[in-house]
Amino acid sequence: MKVDLERQILAANDVLAAENRALFEAAGVFVLDLMASPGAGKTSTILATIAALADRYSIGVIEGDIAGKVDAERVRAHGIPAVQINTGGACHLESAMVRRAAETLDLDSLDLVIIENVGNLVCPSDFDLGESAKVMILSVPEGHDKPCKYPNIFQVSEAILLNKYDTLGVFDFDEAEFRSVVASLNPLAPVFPLSATRGDGVQAWADWLAARIDLARGGAT
Amino acid sequence: MKVDLERQILAANDVLAAENRALFEAAGVFVLDLMASPGAGKTSTILATIAALADRYSIGVIEGDIAGKVDAERVRAHGIPAVQINTGGACHLESAMVRRAAETLDLDSLDLVIIENVGNLVCPSDFDLGESAKVMILSVPEGHDKPCKYPNIFQVSEAILLNKYDTLGVFDFDEAEFRSVVASLNPLAPVFPLSATRGDGVQAWADWLAARIDLARGGAT
Repeated sequence: MKVDLERQILAANDVLAAENRALFEAAGVFVLDLMASPGAGKTSTILATIAALADRYSIGVIEGDIAGKVDAERVRAHGIPAVQINTGGACHLESAMVRRAAETLDLDSLDLVIIENVGNLVCPSDFDLGESAKVMILSVPEGHDKPCKYPNIFQVSEAILLNKYDTLGVFDFDEAEFRSVVASLNPLAPVFPLSATRGDGVQAWADWLAARIDLARGGAT
Repeated sequence: MKVDLERQILAANDVLAAENRALFEAAGVFVLDLMASPGAGKTSTILATIAALADRYSIGVIEGDIAGKVDAERVRAHGIPAVQINTGGACHLESAMVRRAAETLDLDSLDLVIIENVGNLVCPSDFDLGESAKVMILSVPEGHDKPCKYPNIFQVSEAILLNKYDTLGVFDFDEAEFRSVVASLNPLAPVFPLSATRGDGVQAWADWLAARIDLARGGAT
């Protein structure tokens, strides 16, 4: 019975996700759903991505958290429009929440909207938000075994950012093993090692994202 | 409607949790529900706790993961009975899963069962498993702002372990700010800084747990 309820919730979400996707495509905005564990560096990665791409694209941010508004405030401090969603207990964003947040942004003026999902390696991977692409961050301190334990999120992500890469020497993280399991789960997804707070490796990730944005635009016109 | 469905699921879970609790109390076993983000060091903390307490108590482990069985194998390699639960997508353990796992352990011969919940700072805090106590781990690399973003799990935990404490110098973690917010959310919960892999600080946590186990036994006889 539980599974049926979940299926109903997911089906209702999918209807709204399709509406979101049509809305975003009509506005010509590329929407990135960024997923990761708590504390993997989602907000820092968003700020680093903005720094790398703000001269090329007009960017907005939707911040998802159980509670609090510190992330939206951090982004706004950089002059970027940001909306905070508080899920009030829900462990993931759903399409209806994203729609309400998106309606408060001037989508027509934006090229890229980055959605920071709730910190969780499980449920965010099940929910289509109408995004153009899902991307995930794993941080080095979480350990190289995470793809084995949370395979779905590694499979639905179009790129995988390996953050806090500068701490590789501090932790027992087997990068070869990590890349091997990721490649078996998702052979097409590139892995970008980076340090969002230092900036190392951010350019390669930003270039990939820019290429995806330009490709989507080329396809739309 | 979604909220009603969640309420029904939680209510059904609570009925089974009460049955689990009666089962555990009849067997004289103390059951710890250990919650944390992915990669915060749950399995390492369980192994360190076993090392500190195995001469005083007979211990069993229930490992919860979306997929994989590496954690149960790690525990069994130390001569400790361990059962692996694979939730197959669910982001938290529920009482029914714990019951099935507990039935495969010889509860009467055990003093302590440690349940490793699925890596998630959200949903595990909502589900009573029939445990004697919930305890959480936050790891230093996750950041000091997590109590603001995930307040519920900090409120339901009877103790908070601050793991990977040896990496405090590597990350921008404000321990005073962390302790201040934790104290406002949950004034009674002690915070134990430790490094599960090195062993630093484990004894203080193990002593607290031993006192809780002995208190529960004293109350039961």
